[in-house]
Amino acid sequence: MKRTELIDNIFRKGSFLCVGLDPDIAKIPAEIKGTPAERILAFNKAIIDATAPYCVAYKPNTAFYECHGAQGWQALADTIAYIREKYPDQFIIADAKRGDIGNTASRYARTFFEQLNCDAVTLAPYMGEDSVRPFLEYPGKWSIILALTSNPSAGDFETIQDNKGLALYQRVIRTSRHWGNPVNTMYVVGATRAESLAEVRRLAPRHFLLVPGVGAQGGSLEEVARYGMIDECGLLVNSSRGVIHASTGADFAEAAATSARKLAETMAGLLPKDAE
Amino acid sequence: MKRTELIDNIFRKGSFLCVGLDPDIAKIPAEIKGTPAERILAFNKAIIDATAPYCVAYKPNTAFYECHGAQGWQALADTIAYIREKYPDQFIIADAKRGDIGNTASRYARTFFEQLNCDAVTLAPYMGEDSVRPFLEYPGKWSIILALTSNPSAGDFETIQDNKGLALYQRVIRTSRHWGNPVNTMYVVGATRAESLAEVRRLAPRHFLLVPGVGAQGGSLEEVARYGMIDECGLLVNSSRGVIHASTGADFAEAAATSARKLAETMAGLLPKDAE
Repeated sequence: MKRTELIDNIFRKGSFLCVGLDPDIAKIPAEIKGTPAERILAFNKAIIDATAPYCVAYKPNTAFYECHGAQGWQALADTIAYIREKYPDQFIIADAKRGDIGNTASRYARTFFEQLNCDAVTLAPYMGEDSVRPFLEYPGKWSIILALTSNPSAGDFETIQDNKGLALYQRVIRTSRHWGNPVNTMYVVGATRAESLAEVRRLAPRHFLLVPGVGAQGGSLEEVARYGMIDECGLLVNSSRGVIHASTGADFAEAAATSARKLAETMAGLLPKDAE
Repeated sequence: MKRTELIDNIFRKGSFLCVGLDPDIAKIPAEIKGTPAERILAFNKAIIDATAPYCVAYKPNTAFYECHGAQGWQALADTIAYIREKYPDQFIIADAKRGDIGNTASRYARTFFEQLNCDAVTLAPYMGEDSVRPFLEYPGKWSIILALTSNPSAGDFETIQDNKGLALYQRVIRTSRHWGNPVNTMYVVGATRAESLAEVRRLAPRHFLLVPGVGAQGGSLEEVARYGMIDECGLLVNSSRGVIHASTGADFAEAAATSARKLAETMAGLLPKDAE
């Protein structure tokens, strides 16, 4: 999906919500029967149908599928195909955090962009440009590079200052923003570090930011918008558990819709008014 | 597998060779028929049977399986199961370079240690301790953390000096060596930077190092041993293409055996003589 289409969808729907499809098998309602992979797919379809009006993106996390083996991988492929067919205006992110080089990176790119037909994949920058370049060769596809995450140990390396006074995440953005551009690159920036979003914006004024950590992890939507939003929005804010497992009962789909709708309502009030 | 078992296997076989199972479908001989996944599995079995006497570890790279979808993932699982059953003394490394946190990292650990029953998985350290900790909770299993890789863009971040004069890879080792210990943690150090192995050894004197880049990528086995070997060996040196695709003809298995045997013969001469 092109950047202009994504922006159009955001302003048309009044939402920059990304729903994280991280199905926890222990929280899928007992009413949904079958093998783990069958239950995940049926659950995902119901969640997608319930939340599609309120979000512009879905982000399945590969770990939640891989842990169910080949059938789990098929459930991931079937989930993505379902979104593609029924909701073609949704931006699909494989949250895979891959990071490898050369012919390995090319195969990951083929996996997520050709096999699974995602719009974007999350990538770890540790190994440098070699680990991102093969993904940038796909027109219309996106690399979403880890910058500053919201976990407690982000300080182990991400915020360590180098000999020029740059934190590692700042250097990652400064270096990698020249590999691609704002139509094929985004950055992951955790919502629990909203004040750092201002610094990220200084380094990447036009890039979209994928912001996890709102909801279960404690980040504030208002803070994220204050520091991260630009006239074209420039934000995809993700909520996973807070939406998809809002209820573990038979009302799980309605509860997910309600949770997503509330987030979208708040988001509509935060979007720039004169953008279109 | 325990560290002591791995060391015993190395000295018993006179080899610290790890064979990278990165099957390139375009290089699998035409004689092997079937779907891509069937061809990969049949190819891998022949390669494993041919090389098992000369190596102590296998390292399937997940990208080469994922790019063939759910069937590819099944071929990965079947390959690992084949090694487990027929060659129980082989150390199995999932070269997955995963790096995520919390409940996601736990699921990756479950995937590679429970579902696939690997001994070890390669991990990217960018997000810090949270991205490694869940893997260290499995007794007898190993985390192999990216430190200094052999690709050209390793200099983008890995060798950048921080404000204390430490390169990022040095800081990664200094910090992460305290998360686990030499019985559950290894480091990836590229063979094309053999002189840096001396520095890695200073920081991690007892840890095993997984060294890719010998062969196709140009590293020298003698240099690696000179700078990286300890009395318990402490090295697993990987060769992928140079072994498994030594020939693309009908003699591919013999060619792989020959290539692995030559590496093992060199390795036998490099192992410390008085260790056992």
